[in-house]
Amino acid sequence: MRHEDAAKAAVRGLGVETASWAYANSGTRFKVFPQPGVPRDPYEKIDDAAVVHRLTGAAPTVALHIPWDEVDDYTALAAHARDQGVRIGAINANVFQDDDYKLGSVTNPDPGVRRKATDHLLECIDIMDATGSKDLKLWFADGTNYPGQDSIRARQDRLAEALAETYGRLGADQRMLLEYKLFEPAFYSTDVPDWGTSYAHCLQLGERAQVVIDTGHHAPGTNIEFIVAFLLRAGKLGGFDFNSRFYADDDLMVGAADPFQLFRIMHEIVSADAHDPAQGIAFMLDQCHNIEPKIPAIIRSVLNVQEATAKAALVDADALAKAQQDGDVLGANGTLMDAFNTDVRPLLATMREDQGLDPDPVAAYERSGHFETIRDQRVGGEQAGWGA
Amino acid sequence: MRHEDAAKAAVRGLGVETASWAYANSGTRFKVFPQPGVPRDPYEKIDDAAVVHRLTGAAPTVALHIPWDEVDDYTALAAHARDQGVRIGAINANVFQDDDYKLGSVTNPDPGVRRKATDHLLECIDIMDATGSKDLKLWFADGTNYPGQDSIRARQDRLAEALAETYGRLGADQRMLLEYKLFEPAFYSTDVPDWGTSYAHCLQLGERAQVVIDTGHHAPGTNIEFIVAFLLRAGKLGGFDFNSRFYADDDLMVGAADPFQLFRIMHEIVSADAHDPAQGIAFMLDQCHNIEPKIPAIIRSVLNVQEATAKAALVDADALAKAQQDGDVLGANGTLMDAFNTDVRPLLATMREDQGLDPDPVAAYERSGHFETIRDQRVGGEQAGWGA
Amino acid sequence: MRHEDAAKAAVRGLGVETASWAYANSGTRFKVFPQPGVPRDPYEKIDDAAVVHRLTGAAPTVALHIPWDEVDDYTALAAHARDQGVRIGAINANVFQDDDYKLGSVTNPDPGVRRKATDHLLECIDIMDATGSKDLKLWFADGTNYPGQDSIRARQDRLAEALAETYGRLGADQRMLLEYKLFEPAFYSTDVPDWGTSYAHCLQLGERAQVVIDTGHHAPGTNIEFIVAFLLRAGKLGGFDFNSRFYADDDLMVGAADPFQLFRIMHEIVSADAHDPAQGIAFMLDQCHNIEPKIPAIIRSVLNVQEATAKAALVDADALAKAQQDGDVLGANGTLMDAFNTDVRPLLATMREDQGLDPDPVAAYERSGHFETIRDQRVGGEQAGWGA
Amino acid sequence: MRHEDAAKAAVRGLGVETASWAYANSGTRFKVFPQPGVPRDPYEKIDDAAVVHRLTGAAPTVALHIPWDEVDDYTALAAHARDQGVRIGAINANVFQDDDYKLGSVTNPDPGVRRKATDHLLECIDIMDATGSKDLKLWFADGTNYPGQDSIRARQDRLAEALAETYGRLGADQRMLLEYKLFEPAFYSTDVPDWGTSYAHCLQLGERAQVVIDTGHHAPGTNIEFIVAFLLRAGKLGGFDFNSRFYADDDLMVGAADPFQLFRIMHEIVSADAHDPAQGIAFMLDQCHNIEPKIPAIIRSVLNVQEATAKAALVDADALAKAQQDGDVLGANGTLMDAFNTDVRPLLATMREDQGLDPDPVAAYERSGHFETIRDQRVGGEQAGWGA
Repeated sequence: MRHEDAAKAAVRGLGVETASWAYANSGTRFKVFPQPGVPRDPYEKIDDAAVVHRLTGAAPTVALHIPWDEVDDYTALAAHARDQGVRIGAINANVFQDDDYKLGSVTNPDPGVRRKATDHLLECIDIMDATGSKDLKLWFADGTNYPGQDSIRARQDRLAEALAETYGRLGADQRMLLEYKLFEPAFYSTDVPDWGTSYAHCLQLGERAQVVIDTGHHAPGTNIEFIVAFLLRAGKLGGFDFNSRFYADDDLMVGAADPFQLFRIMHEIVSADAHDPAQGIAFMLDQCHNIEPKIPAIIRSVLNVQEATAKAALVDADALAKAQQDGDVLGANGTLMDAFNTDVRPLLATMREDQGLDPDPVAAYERSGHFETIRDQRVGGEQAGWGA
Repeated sequence: MRHEDAAKAAVRGLGVETASWAYANSGTRFKVFPQPGVPRDPYEKIDDAAVVHRLTGAAPTVALHIPWDEVDDYTALAAHARDQGVRIGAINANVFQDDDYKLGSVTNPDPGVRRKATDHLLECIDIMDATGSKDLKLWFADGTNYPGQDSIRARQDRLAEALAETYGRLGADQRMLLEYKLFEPAFYSTDVPDWGTSYAHCLQLGERAQVVIDTGHHAPGTNIEFIVAFLLRAGKLGGFDFNSRFYADDDLMVGAADPFQLFRIMHEIVSADAHDPAQGIAFMLDQCHNIEPKIPAIIRSVLNVQEATAKAALVDADALAKAQQDGDVLGANGTLMDAFNTDVRPLLATMREDQGLDPDPVAAYERSGHFETIRDQRVGGEQAGWGA
Repeated sequence: MRHEDAAKAAVRGLGVETASWAYANSGTRFKVFPQPGVPRDPYEKIDDAAVVHRLTGAAPTVALHIPWDEVDDYTALAAHARDQGVRIGAINANVFQDDDYKLGSVTNPDPGVRRKATDHLLECIDIMDATGSKDLKLWFADGTNYPGQDSIRARQDRLAEALAETYGRLGADQRMLLEYKLFEPAFYSTDVPDWGTSYAHCLQLGERAQVVIDTGHHAPGTNIEFIVAFLLRAGKLGGFDFNSRFYADDDLMVGAADPFQLFRIMHEIVSADAHDPAQGIAFMLDQCHNIEPKIPAIIRSVLNVQEATAKAALVDADALAKAQQDGDVLGANGTLMDAFNTDVRPLLATMREDQGLDPDPVAAYERSGHFETIRDQRVGGEQAGWGA
Repeated sequence: MRHEDAAKAAVRGLGVETASWAYANSGTRFKVFPQPGVPRDPYEKIDDAAVVHRLTGAAPTVALHIPWDEVDDYTALAAHARDQGVRIGAINANVFQDDDYKLGSVTNPDPGVRRKATDHLLECIDIMDATGSKDLKLWFADGTNYPGQDSIRARQDRLAEALAETYGRLGADQRMLLEYKLFEPAFYSTDVPDWGTSYAHCLQLGERAQVVIDTGHHAPGTNIEFIVAFLLRAGKLGGFDFNSRFYADDDLMVGAADPFQLFRIMHEIVSADAHDPAQGIAFMLDQCHNIEPKIPAIIRSVLNVQEATAKAALVDADALAKAQQDGDVLGANGTLMDAFNTDVRPLLATMREDQGLDPDPVAAYERSGHFETIRDQRVGGEQAGWGA
């Protein structure tokens, strides 16, 4: 019972940030399959995010992507979010969709392109100021496709320079979250390909620069929970971009490909009390829903994070520590597996009822009529997508 | 000297098929960077392919992709190709870019969609008849993104049914080439994910169904030359889609990522005399040139195949066989490496001069003025891309 | 309730074969850590296997490895097994631990070595005759370490020849199960590296040759349940070597690395009623317990297979089929996940009580005193290991 | 010509360290195939290393592994090396072959085991003092096999503590080289799994702690030359353990699996002038020759490093820099490939003749009679292996 209460408390405190672009159309290089009811502007994206929050009670913030979410008046956008019951989360800079960025943005050999890219990063901080966002999230598509195409080392110098200028512009209560990614869109080298690179730059920059772990951005065989544990120990874990993948990339709902891995990640988090909002770890979804309906997929993803967190909180920490200290390999593993094998859905249903929520947010969404509303009302105009 | 002559002869006989879509714009899911001078219709694509053939003497055929290369009169298109000195190669069916295909084409749970997809395959055979093409190349984007989304097994039944109907429509001198691919665009399961699946279906279909190896479509650690050797032994290797990749996909110039691998593949080919055109192996490029100029990249790719073939033909087969039989591990490996380490570029330059070609086709292209011509003339209209 | 009964019935019918060598010492190339109480001969291994069966009611057969389990009188060994309540399962041939096999066994360039290796395979059939075993399980360590070391293709010819001779010697009620493995101990090429190779040879051999899937022997990103579904459809799935691995090899308890994957595999099995013993699929454990106590690890592994099977049997097949047919991606996935997320341990505990077993076999083993007995009695002599 | 002279100079300055254990028997977990003539003690290993140096002029140092190379009098061993014309290189600590280390060495949950392990590290520094070695090379087999087995984070604390104590004992002219490894022998988590972890600890320790890159210890898809470039830029690259692998581990001759990768690595080295011995990068071989004769395999490996270095030195750096600055993707790649495609063997043969060496060290070894001598003389006693 004690553990169940702890699990409920752990989950109740956890806010999962949803991404504005996940409500918009997306696809692969082969095809984007448009869906009915998709938002046509940032306001409508926020409306959808608010629906997710109302149903789950667990998605209080929504991340923006600039320029996909470019508006004339960011203060008004933030106000709209507040009116809807949510807040603006991280501002995601986008320096990969202009023709200028063909050979890179902040690492481009051309100083003019670098200037343009860095200016965009600075502009994103302006938007943070206007929206109250505290996190600047940086992912760079920069890299090269062919050996020799550019100097790997010189690109690091350029990257460091742009990061330093941007970091210098941050307000005292603002952070820089630096993401890494093994590959794609660059095929040969990526300028921030792994956590080590991100960590090294963040260390150089200062306290308010931290690493973001995108769960789908690792080489096969990478132990992601090791990275979580290492960065927590070093005080350099800024947050997650949650999603899952079977092989190559990061487009599936978090927990869909390997729920045990998500549990292991949350076990590291809970073991370090890093689910406590006071610790400032950002738990963000960064997924695309190419063939499945977007809003219920996002609700399902929030629930998946909650379920993994609840299971992690159910781990009998004392028994685990004792078995570990005793070198009882099977006992320690068994203690962890006991928690994973527990069905936490009833517990979370109760928790939701305590919060005045529907115990089954997915079913509640189906009944809510929201989909029928947006399908019928959002006609005309242009559906939002990655390019808009 | 004897080996050098053999190498020249091997290379001289080898025709590399270029792909119409490689001359068009392409990119990643993040961005397509358009290039100046890109063709605006299939006729202009063929013009570019003809330039590659004139400069290399080694690219006599060009593959089409339907509907990307849809025209009113395929006989006229084939005649245009002949006028330009090239022929139509494989017809590539495309059943992945209609909204209907969101959940699959020939494996879709909806029989109406399956019918539509199979009809497209049959239509491609009509185009073969009209253009004189002998090869129907099939790649299916079909698969699922989430466990449970569809029955893996039922999809195989549907696939088998569509393939059988299509195979039955082939003329006596026409072939079906069935490609496989580990992943993408489907994230969880792919309906033809590996050579075993393609092989099993081809075996079921009959003699004129053969496997295509796309060099970029394998899991990490896969020994591709093993597959080449196995399929040659079984009489089921139909051809290659050449390209290269460092991690995930298949967009780089063949030989760019791992020239030693390409050499090992060609060593299996040459060891089995399968470079002899009489054996009917199709050597096709299937690459995209997202950031590099397209025509010179394609010329470079043709040269890479030629260089790997020449090196393979330089292997001292008798010495290799003896060392293998003697269990002389280092001697056998050394014999292979001797050929790989040889610089065959002078030999190929001589061969080209003997053929009345420029010894350096890339430089010849730069001097030819073709790029300036197409850049200036191909203005207005819409550049061809994957979607057109 | 109906589903729960189906789940119990599915699990009750399932026998998991344990491996004699799993009770013996094992390790990595770096070090074997010996454990107290390890068997010193095949009789003691069978004693341990019998303990696992008595506690789980689910491990009625034990596989042998020849020559690790060489005895003078196999009939006596089989009788001993019967006395202990178990039977001899598959006979595993071992043609990789003689100095002669440095460059291969049945694919060795030296015909004398091939003869010796094939003779060993035939001898294993003699042992099948003597013990009543129905399955000859073949795994070949054969392959090469360096490109060029041997002819990939010639090795296939030699393999086919040895398999044909061996197959010809099988009795009418005996099978050949051909395993495949991506890599190791060969570093460059493996002679049976993937399911396609095994399948092609089995097809050539005849009905009583079938493929064995070792769950730990695949390249990263391989969808194993696809292979299960494909082979079931083709009538060529002979069985499993169960184990799990995070990156490279296959030494962990089945279900330990990715319990969701094991569930998906058993979902394919249950969907095809292939858990029904009448279908003849062999469910075998092939694991090594290098640092954890062996017998409880094997019990845990049996339970893991049972839990995955129970969850698979809980899948609402009608709802799943409907969602799949309707193209309801989230609904279909959700139906599968509902079963996976269910805690089946109480259900299985009940089932065991119905069978007159302890509901918790691991705890029952701890209480049984067996470990203390073998620790004290099995002193002197030489502990069994991979080499003996 | 200028470039050729530069290439010769670059290669002439490069010393490749060979490993004492590479001269001894080794194998996989399945089997060690012993070879005739293998050394029986550290003195004989040094004799073989001296042969490699005499023939190549490029292998002046030999690394030791403690306790595999334990002797009573290390000063005498160092003197023996000097007499043979070589020096003692890095001292490699071995804390993975005692029964105590089953659950780890310096990260073991048991403080007594940690003490023992750290004491061994300190003892290795004593041996450095006695032999004149400047480099302490640390590789830890430490990790866990099962999730939950131990606290990932606590193990980092323990690791940091042991490293700090050891670092504190180093002399002013001694270094600590910290290796990382993705997996094996631990199957689930490894305590130093990637360069980021090693880098972070080295940063914490101080200037004389540096990262060692073992080329065979990376996840699929990892860009190793990126790591080289990054660590050079950060002043934290201590050296290499050279070898190559196709899939899983690290036992093949360097350059055997992917010669282009080795070239790209050496291109980063040469671009930073890091081949200059004054920069202190250690170029070490860490390979095992399981089926091929050891001494010629080691000679071949030294030549492979020389050839890659020569090719790297032939890169037209000015043309490359210009093409990179101009964004000329194909031009830049072509400049790199021109160097790679050059056959540098004649150039290196000339260089050797200039040095008074045989132009073909492998052939010279075959003719030298050394193998026949050791085969005949090294009889009786016990051949050295990984365990001795």
